[in-house]
Order: sequence, then structure tokens, then C-alpha cells
Amino acid sequence: MTYSVVGKSIKRVDAVAKVTGRAKYADDFFERDTLVGKILRSPYAHAVIKNIDVSKAKALPGVEAVLTYKDVPQTKFATAGHPYSLDPKHRDKEDRSILTNKARFVGDAIAAVVATDELIAEEALKLIEVEYEVLEPLLTPEDAMKEGAPQIHEGCERNILASNGNEYGDLEAAFQEADHIFEGEYETSIVQHCHLENQVAQAYVDTDGRIVIITSTQIPHICRRVVGQALGIPWGKVRIIKPYVGGGFGNKQEVTIEPLTAAMTLAVGGRPVKLELSREEVMIDTRTRHAFKFKIKTGLTKDGKLLGIHIKTISNTGAYASHGHSIAMSASSKFRPLYPVKGFKYEPLTVYTNLPAAGAMRGYGAPQIFYAFECHLDDVARKLNMDPIELRKKNFVEVGFVEPVSKNKVLSCGIRECVEKGKELIKWEEKKARYVNQTGTKRRGLGMACFSYASGTHPVSLEIAGARIVLNQDGSVQLQIGATEIGQGSDTVFAQMVAEVLGIPMDMVHVISTQDTDITPFDTGAYASRQSYVTGMAVKKAALEVKEKILDFVWGMTDIPAHMLDIRDANIIYKHSGEIVMPLEKAAMQTYYDTVFAKPITSDTTNNARINAYSFGVTFAEVEVDIKTGKIQVLEIFNVHDSGQILNHQLAEGQVHGGVSMGIGYALSEQMLFDEKTGKPLNNNLLDYKLPTIMDTPDIGVAFVETFDPTSSFGHKSLGEPPAISPAPAIRNAVLDATGVEFNRLPMNPQRVFEKFKEVGLI
Amino acid sequence: MTYSVVGKSIKRVDAVAKVTGRAKYADDFFERDTLVGKILRSPYAHAVIKNIDVSKAKALPGVEAVLTYKDVPQTKFATAGHPYSLDPKHRDKEDRSILTNKARFVGDAIAAVVATDELIAEEALKLIEVEYEVLEPLLTPEDAMKEGAPQIHEGCERNILASNGNEYGDLEAAFQEADHIFEGEYETSIVQHCHLENQVAQAYVDTDGRIVIITSTQIPHICRRVVGQALGIPWGKVRIIKPYVGGGFGNKQEVTIEPLTAAMTLAVGGRPVKLELSREEVMIDTRTRHAFKFKIKTGLTKDGKLLGIHIKTISNTGAYASHGHSIAMSASSKFRPLYPVKGFKYEPLTVYTNLPAAGAMRGYGAPQIFYAFECHLDDVARKLNMDPIELRKKNFVEVGFVEPVSKNKVLSCGIRECVEKGKELIKWEEKKARYVNQTGTKRRGLGMACFSYASGTHPVSLEIAGARIVLNQDGSVQLQIGATEIGQGSDTVFAQMVAEVLGIPMDMVHVISTQDTDITPFDTGAYASRQSYVTGMAVKKAALEVKEKILDFVWGMTDIPAHMLDIRDANIIYKHSGEIVMPLEKAAMQTYYDTVFAKPITSDTTNNARINAYSFGVTFAEVEVDIKTGKIQVLEIFNVHDSGQILNHQLAEGQVHGGVSMGIGYALSEQMLFDEKTGKPLNNNLLDYKLPTIMDTPDIGVAFVETFDPTSSFGHKSLGEPPAISPAPAIRNAVLDATGVEFNRLPMNPQRVFEKFKEVGLI
Repeated sequence: MTYSVVGKSIKRVDAVAKVTGRAKYADDFFERDTLVGKILRSPYAHAVIKNIDVSKAKALPGVEAVLTYKDVPQTKFATAGHPYSLDPKHRDKEDRSILTNKARFVGDAIAAVVATDELIAEEALKLIEVEYEVLEPLLTPEDAMKEGAPQIHEGCERNILASNGNEYGDLEAAFQEADHIFEGEYETSIVQHCHLENQVAQAYVDTDGRIVIITSTQIPHICRRVVGQALGIPWGKVRIIKPYVGGGFGNKQEVTIEPLTAAMTLAVGGRPVKLELSREEVMIDTRTRHAFKFKIKTGLTKDGKLLGIHIKTISNTGAYASHGHSIAMSASSKFRPLYPVKGFKYEPLTVYTNLPAAGAMRGYGAPQIFYAFECHLDDVARKLNMDPIELRKKNFVEVGFVEPVSKNKVLSCGIRECVEKGKELIKWEEKKARYVNQTGTKRRGLGMACFSYASGTHPVSLEIAGARIVLNQDGSVQLQIGATEIGQGSDTVFAQMVAEVLGIPMDMVHVISTQDTDITPFDTGAYASRQSYVTGMAVKKAALEVKEKILDFVWGMTDIPAHMLDIRDANIIYKHSGEIVMPLEKAAMQTYYDTVFAKPITSDTTNNARINAYSFGVTFAEVEVDIKTGKIQVLEIFNVHDSGQILNHQLAEGQVHGGVSMGIGYALSEQMLFDEKTGKPLNNNLLDYKLPTIMDTPDIGVAFVETFDPTSSFGHKSLGEPPAISPAPAIRNAVLDATGVEFNRLPMNPQRVFEKFKEVGLI
Repeated sequence: MTYSVVGKSIKRVDAVAKVTGRAKYADDFFERDTLVGKILRSPYAHAVIKNIDVSKAKALPGVEAVLTYKDVPQTKFATAGHPYSLDPKHRDKEDRSILTNKARFVGDAIAAVVATDELIAEEALKLIEVEYEVLEPLLTPEDAMKEGAPQIHEGCERNILASNGNEYGDLEAAFQEADHIFEGEYETSIVQHCHLENQVAQAYVDTDGRIVIITSTQIPHICRRVVGQALGIPWGKVRIIKPYVGGGFGNKQEVTIEPLTAAMTLAVGGRPVKLELSREEVMIDTRTRHAFKFKIKTGLTKDGKLLGIHIKTISNTGAYASHGHSIAMSASSKFRPLYPVKGFKYEPLTVYTNLPAAGAMRGYGAPQIFYAFECHLDDVARKLNMDPIELRKKNFVEVGFVEPVSKNKVLSCGIRECVEKGKELIKWEEKKARYVNQTGTKRRGLGMACFSYASGTHPVSLEIAGARIVLNQDGSVQLQIGATEIGQGSDTVFAQMVAEVLGIPMDMVHVISTQDTDITPFDTGAYASRQSYVTGMAVKKAALEVKEKILDFVWGMTDIPAHMLDIRDANIIYKHSGEIVMPLEKAAMQTYYDTVFAKPITSDTTNNARINAYSFGVTFAEVEVDIKTGKIQVLEIFNVHDSGQILNHQLAEGQVHGGVSMGIGYALSEQMLFDEKTGKPLNNNLLDYKLPTIMDTPDIGVAFVETFDPTSSFGHKSLGEPPAISPAPAIRNAVLDATGVEFNRLPMNPQRVFEKFKEVGLI
């Protein structure tokens, strides 16, 4: 397909705003009388509050309110940012209240203070006296599931939150038919999103008596609902405003601080209260990525055809449910389309522990499952003495495949081309030959790993999106969407879509970047790599509706039938000849000022996207392993993506850069550490938590295989999360290639690599 | 008609916001780096700028920019807040630029400073050196029209801005047929609106490169257009935000400070700049009410039937055109429906002078023309020795009359009932009898005067209005309108309309009070007493559309046909029995979360109201005149209005109280004074300008005659401006009744009354 604006590397619509510092984030809003909120956190991983005395804190001058669980509704609510479901069984687990009377991890919110300034608030926290009955902390799923272990949440048997698996075909028959059966165990670690902007919210009661919250969220409309539920008030009494957001990566697809911020303003008569988490707080009391432990069993024919896959996993969801049940289940949904087999079975267990709650994070289970499975495939290839690429090529999905569980159909698939392109880019054959039989201290190796991913959540969740377009007198338009720009560039691609459909230049599309639940069309927000796919349909629909209205109006003005007309370069033209009929501005003016037919043109559109599209891709990595120090250096890394048509190459590359960087950290250095006895966090700060720096990051190569997905408004598919999925297994497989050592646990940091090399006798 | 919510004295939706100080006005918005703008004003009424040196001002530390006419576009634009017209002849006069190189009144804006604080800005103004060539100031229309007088605006012959009259029937024949011909001359003064909140605006360039202006305006969408025109940029590049407004009365139906504020922010790279006028500035450099001089000639039959009316008027529009041509013309449009005659002729002249520009003010010409004509009618009644009420009753319009010029048809008219009710309230007969033959120092008298008024501007201007409603999950709604709440209570009555149509309580209607041209449905704003009438149609239309969508959705959910359903008390009910089918909330939830049919319900509606309705009313006043001091005291005053169905009695009474108070000031004390030689303002402050205080104001009696106007969405008609029209002539006629002296010039302040009494020999 050839488009005029879509597909071009258009500069971000918010580029200037962001580099000049003009873009306003949640912390940039303030009122003269804004108060400061602070949270008192539990020092124990598991403890019941026996007594809490806030009298001294309340007496401190400048303290406006002190809140404990006694002062806030004890309604249990769920924090995960999923669309609400009318089916109670389909809802997220309601397992927390705004403030708790039982601490479930070190850092759990026990009390809160509202004061005139930060120092007074900090001082007041110290004056709150809490008497705890300390319980046994359960820090691993295994401990938590032990018979007789205390229940972290009352009534939750063996602390198992969920165990919803899925399967298709006949696994036993597949294994029977197999020439080879392989088994492997793999383990991922708890990591953090590390978005630049910490969680921050400001709440006040507005002139209509409603609660307004300005917050850094991916999901304003869901946030509205959850705050309403948490406070037990009608949802219409809550208004969420989302300004620019400095990254979320799933951590802001969760309603973490807003209910408490709302409770704080209610406690001070509606005055504005700001609650801003420190980095240390963000790293324990927002969400982490679930650590998974996998047991994989596969059956293959002797020429490498996968027949059966059996995956068992235990996921550590920490102290609260959050997205836990959903992520464990969802991992397989992302995975299933890549390698169709005769028999598939997935058995996840999601288990509560007394660690910080895990939740949504870029990839939503896929980085875990693909790490495990793509490692496993390389291990299998070695055992079969096959080229790992050839092994995968024997098993890749083909167009036309209907994924048996979701019934989603693969209508475009460029995975084979992605692999070919990646091979070329990294010079696979040449280097493979060169690196045979290395024996020195520094050994190089090549690895690759593939992934598949969905575009949105259909058919699991509702995929509804809205867009509103208003045509101005000068022919320019405002575009309002409920979908949220959180740094990924969605505002820019939506503007491109509108410019494309309406035949106007980009500077005539004014995107209202702020979402405001009072006025913004309903959309569940930024997650599941859904926006350009799902919201894109609503945006296109709205733009088509505006275009139709414009051309019909011109028909009325000119007697030229609408079907003969088109819009190009902000002119109404004859479709057959390109001849200009009139400037768009002239028609737009008439829609406002015709004394008889004036009717300003708008469209206020909703689309329920009951369809999905799979994107695919591969990482190729070249590493150099220092055998003596255990240090792994990524020399080259290429991500090749089939995300359908690329809407904006520059932005798409940016997405891939970020995702690969995240994948490198996941592979080599990142891990949240806790004291093994007490559960105290050991590295909840950016000094001790080892995020890769630019010095650790090679040039990241990016390429695209542009298939055209017919389900999509412009042939595109998901790209937000996919880049983060396959780097870790590709790097691990490159290390395997370089050293012959199987690393089945993340991260592969020098200490762990060094220990492993000693264990296997390499040093 | 019986309504559930409409017609009730519902508390203002912004009542709590305003009394608690939570309502944000334009001055309440600020940024950390907001700069201050100040204006240098001409000390001469008429002068050409020969030279202007800003170098010293620019050199002052803290001064960020200094602007003169050389630094801003010299595009001429019109400031009047009328809907734009595609017909150039129908547009307002484009006669000013943002800063001028020729001063046309004392106070004309010559230069502007942007500085880091107010004191520096003031200091910088003093450092600007201007060399003027002083011209002869033309301070009266007579001087301005003299042969050889200098042209205030180049190319404007005899300084006459416009002379567009109207007529119907055969005036000559009517006068021929008449038994009596009467003539009279009447004169009104220049007065000020005196809204509580001065003009204030803040402008900055937003992250999209567009100019945003937060301003105290009645007309955000028109303001957007005028700023675009003044700066010569596409209108879509301007965004106007209108928060709560502290009164306008027509003075903010004018784009006075916004273009300069926009130019200021552009001069400092888009940083926010606030321009706030002082009261002294507001009183000279915003707008005043036009002073009119009338010559009236009437022909009547001997039993008092009016046959012909000939009105000539000269209106003093001051230095710039503003609404001048329109107000002079419009005065007769308001007047014509009240007394149909065989021949009518209206000849207005609107003349530029070197005084502050006059513009729109509550009543828009009607207070002037009705003052003149209702005085004249009482003078005629005395000459015919008729009761002035009887004289009017012989001449009042009847239902069915089609006003010959506008073709608007009178479909409801309660003027006769208004008069009867007023007579009763003031005890006309009883007091008339009592006050016969007074001779003392203090003499009492009764007077009355009538008026008619339109609802909006059809057919002169486009009457387009938009409303958007969004249904929330809890069944509550947001209502967005382009029409502006400026204190008159429109948000409340619109909410009532929505509650009425949707069958929900008031607290489930959330009105978005702020207008924002980026997102607010298009509506030209608050003026011409149009909002409840014109915008009310759009609001009702939007609510009906939402209701229809809800009932259709429930039809889908339940198989109960929509025509059997209704909504009452936020429940879906069977229309025939009232039995509850389901709570509205249940249906609303389903519109959001049905996995197949979800489609949040909204309506985004425009209505072009090509219809009008006349409201009518009367003032009855009782005065006591102190013959020795010339002091007139209003003892009792009653306004009785036919504004059709009253939407909210409490708010309606508030409107009448305000209007009558304004009318009393107009009658007795208010007048802007200028030095007769230089044109310097003498009383542009609230100490020397004599606004009536509460001590000057009697209890104001209010009554309504509730006709039902079928053109209107709820039977209502205009009420915003009408209360200010008839008090002045009623008081004047009461003074005439008390003293036998005809006061034909406003105001009747003690000095003027004293002089007149001396002149006629009373003292």
C-alpha cells in the first residue's frame, strides 16, 4: 500500500514540547494551596497491625490529616488496569483496600499523612506509633504453597491466586508419536519498569463536588472506575486527567496511588493534595515483573518437527493479585501462535508471596515464556545437532493458521523473512564459521530467538476505542482520543492517520494529548500493544466519517456528487482528474457560517474491535564472553520485526531501541533483590539496581519486514511490547554458542556466570 | 406545561463553587514563569504618532519585550462579538489594529510592555518616549459630522460609520390619516457595564505551537476567530479557554484585550503573559453604552391609536466601530414588535467621535430607544389627557402579528397581563388618586414603561448552537456546551433541561462549565439573551438523542420496544405503568461493557435556530422627588415579565434584580464624563462614577406572566437583557407624574434635576 503520510518518518507531534520542557507532566500542575501526601510503610513483610496511634502525628502543626485503615473505606478492590467485565468471574481479583490493617510486604502502605509541606509530612510519619504482630514471611512460591503456611490473603488456599491454564489437541498422542522427548527448566527474575517519571498524582474536589485526579496513568478511564470502586462512590463522581506521561511500560496500567490520593483530598475537605512516590517507593510499592519458573517438555520428530509442547509454570505474584492471574494465562496466548503443534498444554500457577506485588510489564508474560521456550529450543537443537534456525523454520506458523484457543486467525506472517533478514544483518553464516572451536579467554558466539505477539486483547477482553474529530473553520481538525500517549508516539501516528484520510498536512491535525474522562471519548488506554491497532480503527472511522460529511457538504454547495470528490493537500479535488474544486477551508467555513445549512462537522465515534492480529519477530545477537570474569558483552544485536505496515519508521525504531535495551538489562544485569529471611528490599534504587547504561549497550540494529495485515486500519500490527521479548533468549543462546554452557536462569550477571563456569569446570 | 425539573427554583450548579471561592476565574490561572503585560495609553484624544522611542524601556532589566504598532500586524480587524458572515457586507467594520499609530481617544493603546513583574512593567511604560502631532478632538457627533472636520478613520466621510435604517408601511399616509402629530427629543448618556471582574487574559504558546488564551470572555469561539484575524494566522492555530466569568453585560461580547495578549506572548517566545486591565482602564478602553439622541414624531387618532412612528437617532460610537452600526439598527428591531403601526420609519446615524468606543451592553439599543419612546408616549398621553396605560393598551401588539421587517411572528404575548399585574402590585389606582394635586417639597408620582425584546438575533445573524452529552457508566452524564456561563445561570438551566429530558436527578448532570474552543461544541456565546432560547434547543436535541439511544439499547437488551419505555428517577420504566424495568445504571454499564454491543452513548449535536420569540414586560415605579434638592428616590419598583415559561424562578428573579438595578443607575446617576475640550475622562473609576449602591436601591419587585412560546424548547423566551430596559423611562414618567416636568435627558441626577426645576420655575 502507498500512503501519503502514514508510513513516513514524521517528527513526533510532541517533540518540541518535550525537548523545550513545555510539556506538562502530572507534577507540573500545582495550586497555591496544594498539600503534600506521604505514606507510612510496613517494616515487616508479613504482620498484623495490633494497634496504631496517630495522635502525636495529628498534633504536629502543619499536619492536616492522618489516615489509617480506620479512616478509609475497607471495600476491597482490584488495581489491574483491565476493562471492567459484566461477568463477575472475568473480573480481576479484589484483594486490597486503600490502606491495610495487615502488612503483606516490606513497604505495604499502613498509614498516610497530609501536611502543608514535605518536611512536616515526613516528620509526622515518624510520630505514628504502630504495634505489629509479626507473621512468618513467605518469600517464595514454594514456601507459600506449603501445607500449613499462613494465608497471605484470607481464604486463599495454599496462597494460590489462580491456576487457569489452556490446551489444545492431544498432548499425550503427540508425545507418543514423537521420536524425541526433551525437558528443561528455566527461571526468570523480578525486574522493574524503571520509567523515567515516578508515579505522581494530584487530587482535589472540584466545583461540582466531584473528585478530580491529575495523574500519570496509562489508563484514565479505568482509573476512574477503580477509584469509584475503591471509594464506593458512583464512577461519574470521579474525573481523571492524564497529562503527558514519562513512561509507563505497564506499571501505570495499574491504579496504584490514585485511590489513596483521592482519600487524602476527601480527608482535607477537598483541598488539593499531591502524592508523589520516590524512586525507592516506586520500586517496591508499584509493580514489578513476575518471576516465572518453567518446566518445559517437548516432543519432536527426528527431523525436528515439534509435535507436543507441555509447559508448567509457577509465577510469583507477590503480595497482591494485580494482573497476576492474567499474565500467567496470557503468556501462553502470546506464545501459542508461533509454533503450532498437535498437542499443547499450559499449566500455570500464580502464587501470592510476601514480596512487592508484580503486575503488568512490557510483554505481559511473553518475555518470560519466550525466554524459557527459545532457550529450550536451542538446547534441543544442540541435542539434535541441528542448526537452531533450521529447527525453528521447520516449525513456524503459516498464514491461514487459526490459533485453536483464541480462534484468532493468522492473516499475515513475516517470521521467515524476519529470520532471513536477521541472518544477513548479523552475517550469521560467516561468523558461525569463524567462531567454531574457540578456546581463549574471550569467546564469541551467535544466538537468536523468535517471538509472536498479539495486537490487543481480543477475544479475552473488550477492545473498545473512541475518537472524536472536530473540523475547524480553516480546515484543520482537533483529534481527541481516549487512548493515551505515554511516550510511545501514539499521538503522532493517530495524527498521521487523520492527515492520511482527510488529505491534509500534519500541521493541520491538532491532537488533544491530554485525556480527561469528562470529555475524552472512552478508551481503555495504553496496554497490550493495542493502540495503533485498536484505537487506530476508531481514529480511521472518525476521520472517514468527517471526510464523508465534508464531501457531502461540498456536494450540497456545488452539485458535484460526493463520489466524484476527494481531498488532497487541503483542497477538495475531482477524484478523476485531481483538479481543484475549492480549498477545504472554503467548505469548512461554509459548514460554520452558511445561514441555512451551517452545521459544524464533528464525529464522535466508537469502535469495538473484535479481531486481532499477530506480530512476529526475531532477535539476533553476537556476544563476547569473558571466561575469567563472567562478563558478557553484547557486540551486535539486531531486532527484525513483522509488525505489518510500519506507520512511522523513526518512531518504530525508537520503540525497538527501547525494548531491546530493556531486553539486554533483563538478560544480563537487572534483578530486584530481597533479604532471604525478612523480605527486605536490598536494591530498590537506581544505584544498586543494575539498569544497563549507554556504556553497556551496543548500537541496536533494527529492521522491518512489512507485511500487510488486512484486519488493521493501515495494515499494521503491534510493536509496543514485542521488542522487549526476544533479546534475553537470543543473548543466552549466543552465550551457549560461545561457551557451550546453558544458562537457564536470568540474569546472566558476572557473579552468576562466574559461578556457573566454575561449576561446569570452565574455570 | 408541567415539568419535573424545568421551572423549579433549583440551586445554581456553581453556587457552592462561587461562595467557597473555589470557582476559578481567568486571573486564578498562573504559571511559575508568567510575565506581566502593561499598556501605554495616549494622553490625547486625537493625535498622530510622529515618533516613538522604546530603547530606554527595552534596556530596563526585567523588561522582556516592548511593542508598538511597528511590532504587530497592521491588519485591520473588527472587535464586535458577532458570528462571522460569509457576506462581506454583513461583517463588522474592520477599523483597528492591535496597536495604533494614531490615537483616537484619551487612553488609546499606543505601546505595550512585557516584563517580569508589574512594577517593572509600569516603570518601563514611563521610559517610552512618544512624539505626538495633536489633532483637533471631535467629541460630539455634531462636531464630528461638520463639513471639514478631520477624519477619525481615513476615508470615513463626515465620520459617519453607518446609517442603516428600516421602515415598513406608508409613514406619510399614516401621518396624513392622523388626528394628532406629536414630536419630542430625548437623549441618553454614556454609561459603563461595571462587571465585577475586570478584563483579564493570559496567553501562551502551547506544545503544539498554537496560541492559547485563557480569558474572561462571553464569546470564546468568536474570540478565537478575531484573534486569528488580528494576527493573520489560521483560526485553528488559536485556542480560547473560558473559565468562570465575573459578569460581562455585553462588554465581554467584544474582543478587546485578547489580540494584544496574544501578540505579547509571541513577542516573548510563547512564554505566558498576563494582561489585566485596571478598573480605570476598563472604563475607557473596553466599551461603553452608546449615547443616543432621538427625534421622535408620532401620528395618532384622536382616541389614541398610533398610526405612524418616525424615529431619527444619532448614536455616538466613539473612537472605534465595535457594535456601533449594529446597535443603532438593532434598537428598532427590539422596539418594532411592541406597537404595530401603519407606517414606521427609523433613521439612525452612527458617528465616530474621539471618545472611548461604545459597544454592546445589556439591552443593545433597547434601553435607549424605549427610554425615548416610552417617555414620548407619556408626554403624548398628557397632551391627549389620557391615562398612559390606556394609551398603551390601545396600541399593544397581539398574538399572530408578523413583524414586517424581520418577518418574525408573535406566537405568545402576555404584555396586557403584565401591565394588569404591575398595576395591582404597585396599587396604581389607589396611589394615583392619593397623589393628585401635590404641592409640598416632596412629591410622589407613579410611572410605568413597557418594552419588547427578541430572543437571539434571528434573522439578522446566524443562531447556531452545539451541545455534547456523554453518558457515564453510573447513568450520570456530562454536558458540554459552547454557550457560556457568565453569571446568568445558564449552566444551571441547561442542566435542568438535561435532567428533565433524561429523567435523572440534577446531581447526575455534570456541566463542563469551562469552554475550550478545541473541544467545546461550537456556539457563538452569551449575548442577545439567546442562550436558554437558542442553545436550549441544542441541549434538548442532544438530550433527546441520548434518551433515544438509551431506550433503543434497552430494547436490544430486553425485547421491550423503545416506544414502550421511558426514564424516570434514573430508572428505565414502562411508559404505560411506571413499573421499573431496570436501573438506568444497568443499561449504562451495558453500553460500556457488553462484549458484543458495547458502544458508549454520546450525542454531539448542532442546532441552527432559524426562529425567534419576543418577550415583553413592564416596569412600574413610584418615586418621591425632593423639589429643593433635585434628589429622586425610588420608593417602589416592580418589573413584570412575559419571558414565556420560567425555567428557574430564583435565577430569573436574580436576573431581574440585576437588570432593574442597572436601570435605576441609568435613570438617576450613571454617566461617564469627559472634559469638553480635551476629551479626558473625568470619572473613570468607581468612586466618581455613580453606580447605585444598595442604599439607593429599593426592594425590587418581580413578577412573571408565564405564557408558553411554542417556538422554544420549553416554552421560554429571553430574560437576560430585558429587565434593564424599562426602569429608566418608568422612573422618568413617575417624576413627570410627580412634578409635571418632562426630563428628556439621562441621567436625572440631582444637579440636572435642580437646574431643570429652576429653569421651569418650580424653585
